[in-house]
Amino acid sequence: MTMVGPETADQARLLRLLRDDGPRSRVELVDVLGLPRARFAAEADRLAAQGLVETAGPAASRGGRRSSLLRVGAQVRFGAVLVGDGRLRVALTDGELNPLTRIDEPVDVRLGPEAVVGRTVELLGKLRAEAGLTRLTGVRVALPAPVAVSDGTPVSPPALPGWHRFPVRDTLAAELGCPVHVDNDANAMALGESHAGTGRPFDDFLYVKLGDAIGCGLVLGGSLHRGATSGAGDIGHLQLTEDGPLCACGNTGCVEAYCGDAALVREAVTAARAGRSTVLAERLAATGALTVVDVAAAATAGDPAAQTLVRDAARRLGQVLVGLVSFVNPAIVIIGGAAPGIGPVLLAEIRGVVYRRSTPLATGSMPIVLPDLDAPTAALIGAARLISDQVFTTR
Amino acid sequence: MTMVGPETADQARLLRLLRDDGPRSRVELVDVLGLPRARFAAEADRLAAQGLVETAGPAASRGGRRSSLLRVGAQVRFGAVLVGDGRLRVALTDGELNPLTRIDEPVDVRLGPEAVVGRTVELLGKLRAEAGLTRLTGVRVALPAPVAVSDGTPVSPPALPGWHRFPVRDTLAAELGCPVHVDNDANAMALGESHAGTGRPFDDFLYVKLGDAIGCGLVLGGSLHRGATSGAGDIGHLQLTEDGPLCACGNTGCVEAYCGDAALVREAVTAARAGRSTVLAERLAATGALTVVDVAAAATAGDPAAQTLVRDAARRLGQVLVGLVSFVNPAIVIIGGAAPGIGPVLLAEIRGVVYRRSTPLATGSMPIVLPDLDAPTAALIGAARLISDQVFTTR
Repeated sequence: MTMVGPETADQARLLRLLRDDGPRSRVELVDVLGLPRARFAAEADRLAAQGLVETAGPAASRGGRRSSLLRVGAQVRFGAVLVGDGRLRVALTDGELNPLTRIDEPVDVRLGPEAVVGRTVELLGKLRAEAGLTRLTGVRVALPAPVAVSDGTPVSPPALPGWHRFPVRDTLAAELGCPVHVDNDANAMALGESHAGTGRPFDDFLYVKLGDAIGCGLVLGGSLHRGATSGAGDIGHLQLTEDGPLCACGNTGCVEAYCGDAALVREAVTAARAGRSTVLAERLAATGALTVVDVAAAATAGDPAAQTLVRDAARRLGQVLVGLVSFVNPAIVIIGGAAPGIGPVLLAEIRGVVYRRSTPLATGSMPIVLPDLDAPTAALIGAARLISDQVFTTR
Repeated sequence: MTMVGPETADQARLLRLLRDDGPRSRVELVDVLGLPRARFAAEADRLAAQGLVETAGPAASRGGRRSSLLRVGAQVRFGAVLVGDGRLRVALTDGELNPLTRIDEPVDVRLGPEAVVGRTVELLGKLRAEAGLTRLTGVRVALPAPVAVSDGTPVSPPALPGWHRFPVRDTLAAELGCPVHVDNDANAMALGESHAGTGRPFDDFLYVKLGDAIGCGLVLGGSLHRGATSGAGDIGHLQLTEDGPLCACGNTGCVEAYCGDAALVREAVTAARAGRSTVLAERLAATGALTVVDVAAAATAGDPAAQTLVRDAARRLGQVLVGLVSFVNPAIVIIGGAAPGIGPVLLAEIRGVVYRRSTPLATGSMPIVLPDLDAPTAALIGAARLISDQVFTTR
């Protein structure tokens, strides 16, 4: 495949600057990068020849020499893919990581990786064709799974049965003919928040991702912390109790077995059948099944049984967070992926546990909040950010 | 006070290089720093004028021009102080952080910070006078406490009753007339291990510190991770059970209330009095009290009751580590501060819990080991490293 990308560290810096701050004048860029004018022009020309940057018209005059604006090239298009919570989401972003087009459809991950990856190729191909492109600049896939980033494969993923060590990266790269990388979904969400959301002002924060699978992304010192084998933040299968409910992973009492969407639905069905909630019982009778959205709606409407379910899950999650917060001492904790409307009940309970049990130094002024961006949007922006970091690096 | 220190980023780099790698020839240093020869000579001269570097004789010939060796100046002496486990330890190191002289004496921290800080000033004065110096280059104090690094005060420290917000840094700085900083002891130990011990090859590791107070230092991405308010690693007062033993902090069921030295001694006395251990009962009868060294000796000698105590504590600690290891995914976990001889029993149990319960991606190849350096030595080297980082920074 034809590789594009910066050839020098200065070219890489220029690209990231234009990605993060938008179009800027050549005069300003010379200042910011601290390069001699002729050298800057040569570097910009090299990038323009590859279509990675382009002139965007004259810059507003600052009273001196006229300058022109530079921006990331219009041919730069990143693909972002998110699998999870029963949906396959595919988006294209421009070079500043703004989502341009997006497809969101149901998917059954139990069909296996070949089917889901095959469908991903089709959807990316569709978006690429609509954009009139022959090739994407790069693609990043976010999976609800521990991912060995080095080879782009999921490792023993409880939420993706049958996907263990499937070559997601290499399969997609072969089909798409562009750089492809694979990551954990909570990592992508954390980075999306860091790039464009609530996390943006903070160097150290935790992003907890709720949903079918529970995970956590750590931004430490301004960067995503992946750990020694890219397994950091893998909190869904920590054991809360020895004799707790059976988890999809085969163990008992995991965080996910208490706080995951499936656990909430399971408890809601039990409550409905036991006559503890008229609202849930009526909903179950009407549709034959409950979803986490039903539980959230019941809790938001004031149904005591549904509220108790949510509070119990939140309390368990809070117990996990106490340890993590004391351990890494973040500036803020962001709770993403909660079902619609459920946030306030969830946050109240989590805050109660964390503030009561944590050390004063760690949580004296630490907010626990819902994010600005919904979780899928954060994941797609974060995935685009990750692949752009990769592509906007010296070869 | 007269401040010494580098004036440019290149001077700071040169000092850190000489500190970490020892004496090097001027020719080599010009290469490594990538500076023009004349510029290098000027920077080195500025440092030599302050006594921060000096010539150490001719370098071994490499066949080209003769060169001379440069090293950190002989007047550079760092003071390192460690309070904890009933001891006050004070050391001087040279500019390469080699400990030169050391005093180790009993201390009762309940006498309060004035008394302990006053004694620290006396001991540092003694070592300084013996070394024929009028002034130390800098001093770092390691305390078994959460420390607000910004102002050098302990914050609500359960192991140091009466020390809350005492101005340790400012009191010492006024007395000693040199830069002083204060830190958590586990942080210093982690950095000592990173500089000169088992942690040296690893960018991401956890250092767990056992003893009266239990703490943890995190080295992530090659640097000490302090968190948003320098509270990272504060694991001693995480709650393991709601109804566990009372802790010194006033809560119940803390890690320290199960795994701290006082907890081991408390359980050992109970076992001795209940007739469950002849070895411990005889020791208690002979001396009127037990220490953690007695418990360790009994366990090492094969006493079943003592071994059970150690295993129970190790299992509890392992349960905490499962979460932390999954969360930050370190390359290695170092367990420091264990009583003499107790290591193998402790490690076997901790490994059992962590390897059984953690996710495969996080612990597939993660060693859990005892450190090369004993905990006080690691703390003193780490404290010297921290103050040298501070002094060897551009003013």
